[in-house]
Amino acid sequence: MAQPIGRHFLQIPGPTNVPDRVLRAMSAPTIDHRGPEFAALTREVLSAVRPVFGTSGPVLIYPSSGTGAWEAALVNTLSPGDRVLAFETGHFATLWREMAENLGLRVDFMPGDWRRGVDPEVVRQRLADDADHEIKAVCAVHNETSTAVTSRIEEVRRAIDDAAHPALLLVDTISSLGSVDFRHDEWGVDVTISCSQKGLMLPPGLGFNAISEKALRARESATLPRSYWDWGPILAANERGFFHSTPATNLLYGLLEALRMLEEEGLPEVFRRHRRHAAATRAAVRGWGLETLCLDEREHSPALTAVLLPQGHDADAFRGLVLNRFNMSLGAGLGKLAGTVFRIGHLGDFNDVSLAGTLSGVQMGLELAGVPIDQGGITAALRVLEEA
Amino acid sequence: MAQPIGRHFLQIPGPTNVPDRVLRAMSAPTIDHRGPEFAALTREVLSAVRPVFGTSGPVLIYPSSGTGAWEAALVNTLSPGDRVLAFETGHFATLWREMAENLGLRVDFMPGDWRRGVDPEVVRQRLADDADHEIKAVCAVHNETSTAVTSRIEEVRRAIDDAAHPALLLVDTISSLGSVDFRHDEWGVDVTISCSQKGLMLPPGLGFNAISEKALRARESATLPRSYWDWGPILAANERGFFHSTPATNLLYGLLEALRMLEEEGLPEVFRRHRRHAAATRAAVRGWGLETLCLDEREHSPALTAVLLPQGHDADAFRGLVLNRFNMSLGAGLGKLAGTVFRIGHLGDFNDVSLAGTLSGVQMGLELAGVPIDQGGITAALRVLEEA
Amino acid sequence: MAQPIGRHFLQIPGPTNVPDRVLRAMSAPTIDHRGPEFAALTREVLSAVRPVFGTSGPVLIYPSSGTGAWEAALVNTLSPGDRVLAFETGHFATLWREMAENLGLRVDFMPGDWRRGVDPEVVRQRLADDADHEIKAVCAVHNETSTAVTSRIEEVRRAIDDAAHPALLLVDTISSLGSVDFRHDEWGVDVTISCSQKGLMLPPGLGFNAISEKALRARESATLPRSYWDWGPILAANERGFFHSTPATNLLYGLLEALRMLEEEGLPEVFRRHRRHAAATRAAVRGWGLETLCLDEREHSPALTAVLLPQGHDADAFRGLVLNRFNMSLGAGLGKLAGTVFRIGHLGDFNDVSLAGTLSGVQMGLELAGVPIDQGGITAALRVLEEA
Amino acid sequence: MAQPIGRHFLQIPGPTNVPDRVLRAMSAPTIDHRGPEFAALTREVLSAVRPVFGTSGPVLIYPSSGTGAWEAALVNTLSPGDRVLAFETGHFATLWREMAENLGLRVDFMPGDWRRGVDPEVVRQRLADDADHEIKAVCAVHNETSTAVTSRIEEVRRAIDDAAHPALLLVDTISSLGSVDFRHDEWGVDVTISCSQKGLMLPPGLGFNAISEKALRARESATLPRSYWDWGPILAANERGFFHSTPATNLLYGLLEALRMLEEEGLPEVFRRHRRHAAATRAAVRGWGLETLCLDEREHSPALTAVLLPQGHDADAFRGLVLNRFNMSLGAGLGKLAGTVFRIGHLGDFNDVSLAGTLSGVQMGLELAGVPIDQGGITAALRVLEEA
Repeated sequence: MAQPIGRHFLQIPGPTNVPDRVLRAMSAPTIDHRGPEFAALTREVLSAVRPVFGTSGPVLIYPSSGTGAWEAALVNTLSPGDRVLAFETGHFATLWREMAENLGLRVDFMPGDWRRGVDPEVVRQRLADDADHEIKAVCAVHNETSTAVTSRIEEVRRAIDDAAHPALLLVDTISSLGSVDFRHDEWGVDVTISCSQKGLMLPPGLGFNAISEKALRARESATLPRSYWDWGPILAANERGFFHSTPATNLLYGLLEALRMLEEEGLPEVFRRHRRHAAATRAAVRGWGLETLCLDEREHSPALTAVLLPQGHDADAFRGLVLNRFNMSLGAGLGKLAGTVFRIGHLGDFNDVSLAGTLSGVQMGLELAGVPIDQGGITAALRVLEEA
Repeated sequence: MAQPIGRHFLQIPGPTNVPDRVLRAMSAPTIDHRGPEFAALTREVLSAVRPVFGTSGPVLIYPSSGTGAWEAALVNTLSPGDRVLAFETGHFATLWREMAENLGLRVDFMPGDWRRGVDPEVVRQRLADDADHEIKAVCAVHNETSTAVTSRIEEVRRAIDDAAHPALLLVDTISSLGSVDFRHDEWGVDVTISCSQKGLMLPPGLGFNAISEKALRARESATLPRSYWDWGPILAANERGFFHSTPATNLLYGLLEALRMLEEEGLPEVFRRHRRHAAATRAAVRGWGLETLCLDEREHSPALTAVLLPQGHDADAFRGLVLNRFNMSLGAGLGKLAGTVFRIGHLGDFNDVSLAGTLSGVQMGLELAGVPIDQGGITAALRVLEEA
Repeated sequence: MAQPIGRHFLQIPGPTNVPDRVLRAMSAPTIDHRGPEFAALTREVLSAVRPVFGTSGPVLIYPSSGTGAWEAALVNTLSPGDRVLAFETGHFATLWREMAENLGLRVDFMPGDWRRGVDPEVVRQRLADDADHEIKAVCAVHNETSTAVTSRIEEVRRAIDDAAHPALLLVDTISSLGSVDFRHDEWGVDVTISCSQKGLMLPPGLGFNAISEKALRARESATLPRSYWDWGPILAANERGFFHSTPATNLLYGLLEALRMLEEEGLPEVFRRHRRHAAATRAAVRGWGLETLCLDEREHSPALTAVLLPQGHDADAFRGLVLNRFNMSLGAGLGKLAGTVFRIGHLGDFNDVSLAGTLSGVQMGLELAGVPIDQGGITAALRVLEEA
Repeated sequence: MAQPIGRHFLQIPGPTNVPDRVLRAMSAPTIDHRGPEFAALTREVLSAVRPVFGTSGPVLIYPSSGTGAWEAALVNTLSPGDRVLAFETGHFATLWREMAENLGLRVDFMPGDWRRGVDPEVVRQRLADDADHEIKAVCAVHNETSTAVTSRIEEVRRAIDDAAHPALLLVDTISSLGSVDFRHDEWGVDVTISCSQKGLMLPPGLGFNAISEKALRARESATLPRSYWDWGPILAANERGFFHSTPATNLLYGLLEALRMLEEEGLPEVFRRHRRHAAATRAAVRGWGLETLCLDEREHSPALTAVLLPQGHDADAFRGLVLNRFNMSLGAGLGKLAGTVFRIGHLGDFNDVSLAGTLSGVQMGLELAGVPIDQGGITAALRVLEEA
């Protein structure tokens, strides 16, 4: 890949800037996936990945994208025609609905304005109304990558419990895992869906399912056809240190290194760092006199920030300018947000001066694109970063 | 990964020894999968991969193992309850049958002794007998990785044509693609299934489907549930230089480099090299006084060789000795061949002296394991390699 | 090496941030330094390196530091007891004097205040006074890495010519080559000394001498003992594509890649980029209300900026804070500048947003260190960077 | 670097096959050579390198080739006109003589036939004859890379002691260090010269001097001009964790990794492995009916083997054939051995199957080159390797 001058700033909300430690780990020679060295690797990875999900239960790893991990969650727990409750929190929630329908599920899709997270009250109400327990699963996106809104999963859990409803809770943590506090066990999540290229700081290519006992039991009666995604043979193989179909060995090398990095920094510190960076970014946005997409103060994402451009300004033209002039990639507005919103990723292996460079690039780009802003944005961000 | 002394000899039939050029290419920073640089990469990869499949049509690339690529082939072309014709050529053919049944297909599984390939006569007969065209697909493994037997796909094609049967032809080229001559278009294959970690010289993590016009049409009426594997949205996104779900970027970097290497050497020369190495390996096996699993001279695999140990000798103990003493991995006997067969992979990025080292390790290992052999094996192999 | 969070900002004036392209190139396997592939590499490197020096003559490459390349310049051209004219422009000029004296030369060392470059008037005067031509060489540092002052070598050349003096002109371009416009041939430099880890974007380990015909002739009568550094056998071996003693192969791989990068961007654009970054940095320094060490507007270095802290503030404590808090390395004050000056490297593979991140880190560090500054520094810098 | 098919076999006697662990370690980002992380690296490297030299005293590391490390040994310990005793054991010993003379020393060069090591009897005699102690140093090559003859340094030491002569003992361990047992302290060596690209498994670019107290004292009165090589300032900087001139950072990363590998295997096992490989190689040579250059059974090198071709056969044509046909580099005959001798390197990170591949390539090459040999060579070598 020819690279322009200097380090590229990959400030989309994933894939994130892969640490060179991880890239080096991934460049080790591929080994026999049926040999003793591999079995040791499997055991180490499967053990080290659990704390990041907040679980002491099994985590399955697929050679797949995050979308594949969604499919795995559905086909292992549900049957054709099952009803699931989902929420229009943004583009990815909408894609999830499509997938569920493609697979033959019926989706109760609660409408939304793409500026707020899942409303726990709506969950409570809908489940309370579902006296026959027709709804088999509640599907929520923890951190909507398209809107920078983080849903309050703990409250969603409480709403399900309040309704005393047996629905499974399936949560997409694709852009939150390893960046935003998440607790599979404590919050009673049944399937946590994730992937490698965001907070786990890897290239894309791995999908994850963390699963509860209840999810495992659901699998026994679920009748959607499944083979590649079937948890059963994978869990059996994992017991012996192997995988049911050939695993993506070199990405596993990288995963182990990334997990070591998260452990070295400590997850609480990792989450604190992401919250600081998000706060500094919002200070810049306010300093520029612009508006974030997220409307609820409780739901600002620690992992990325979505910014609305004033009417008449094209977010994609602005992003193109930033890419060409400053060698920095920003996230596009997706779906119905195309052209009006841009997204700043500040997740993964990231530090204060890289964020300052990012926000400087955004500020210069906005000015050069003719968006009317106040130049105080970067200074406001630095003031936040200076605080402990 | 702690590595023992010297270069590991990864002589299993895949993953193969990944060239350091490919590992270096894979260690480039991950880029925005929605940006212009990525679109150029997609187009270059999708174009360069076609000749290896012998096709001018589309090739789809999944973040998945080869098993996932099988599932993709089935769910895009078939409907619940469809009958498919398959052949017990070995362990992987047997796994394919299981997958098909898991997905709700009915499999006519022609029994076999794991020492021969698909019998074109049987294909001709079964299809001729199927006057109602209940059989929707013929599933064949080109190169059975578990037995080192290469089926004669061209003759299978002719048999289907002779029967004037409309069944699709689905072919697994997992351990042949890039090592053994294969011609998707010329042989009228409808879906060619493959993956990254064999002749393509990459780590595992990518699955492939090359597809015919007829396969694409079959997709329109196929009703097995599909979402992740659905060719439709992927082909649409590929048109614009992108993928429908996040692609495994760094493996694509490696793929492009591997395709360049194949092009530099030239596919005919690549195939010739594999045939030479297979011939030298068989010369060694004969020299040792041992027997190959493959019984038909027309069906010896150019990519790997499976060797039968004399009764009373444990192939896995032998392989363990070779691993510990010589830092070389050999392939195990799979399924019902466990313990009686070992496999020597000689595919991918491989040369004469590496093969000589491999065969030397096998010879020493056999002697140390107490298997009665003639020491002339290595010398016989060298004589074959000396010939132009 | 354990790495703190996020990318380290290596903003010392060398070693600079090595591009990952170069690191990957360097990680290719070492080859036979006497084989045909190596001869091709040698020829390509020796040809591609010339334009960076602005010469069509030979460039010698040593496995050495830049200090070694100084020694090579002296022992190839001078004899014990020879007089050389040198200038106290900073720490490295002072080290050069020490080296010359260690080797048995007599140094006329013109005093300086470490805030200005070589004064061409002094050169003219001293050479004019040297009627007997006792002075055998004029030694100048093009870009004083310790002071961020760039001497006007072209004017020094003119001064020598005005004096019609036969002294050789030896110029240290250690922190200017590949970052600051330099013209070995056009400016009549006799030996240009440089190294790998600055504008050439490599790790340390290579020293360079570009030499004139006159320098080559001087070698014939020079009598300082020499063997490792002797140009003669190296030039002879280079003719055949080899080196006289074993070359640092993998650094040569990196050098070739770095030279390609410079060629892709184009040297005039490379120099322009460095001047822009230096201008933006000085705008920040002025914005903070601080003072640069360099006093002459004509002599500000495009490659780095040295900043004076107000009395009572410890530059090393400030740098320690920036390292620990922001994962960024800044240059220390060297020699008599220790503790009062810090240096910002903005050379090598560097872009606008990286510079903005760097200056943000400096601004935050100054505030946190209690140095009284105006917060307008970063905004002033961004304004400069926004200009074409 | 374009690479031919498969792994290159770099079977010259250095540079050796660099382990990928070392290449990966070297590809970490360059750090500030004046920062705290670097100081920790320096201390770890300087401590871990000592056991390999068999010393508890200081080891100096230069950015240089091994030739540079020779120059360092001479200029730190000797004065113009000093007499040194040296031995014509081969090409490199002859080069060392040239260097000494270039630097102004007088060399008593004991003639030799390039097939034997230093004769301890001659040492004893010459020193006994030197009643005035005019001879200031005895210079010996431990392992003559051009001849594959290992001199008996311990006996040379004893000879010096027997003569009760105060001469320094300077020993070149360039192709023995890390491969052949060597004991700087125990054998009373005063300066041990070495470099990175042989038994230390690194690319070229580092030179080493291990020094005795006596050598350090000699430095105080030695008057050869010195600056770059001067031990004094380097030792002083090393005390603080730094180097006097900029060190070759990324090679130091690699060195640390290589030292870890040697420690993991254990030096006694490393030496044993090299002796086994040398024995197997000689078995092959005898099996082919050819002759090694080395004539004394006590002096066969564990690190490489030099083989004489029968009259009328061109060793360089043979090597060219092996390179082109088998992607393997063998060592040329150097100096007066050109064309009649080839050398097989079997040192560094090397294992039994790699050696078997190497010897197979040599055997096939000899046959294809028309050299009359017996094909039993490879089988004889395997028999040696099979033994514990």
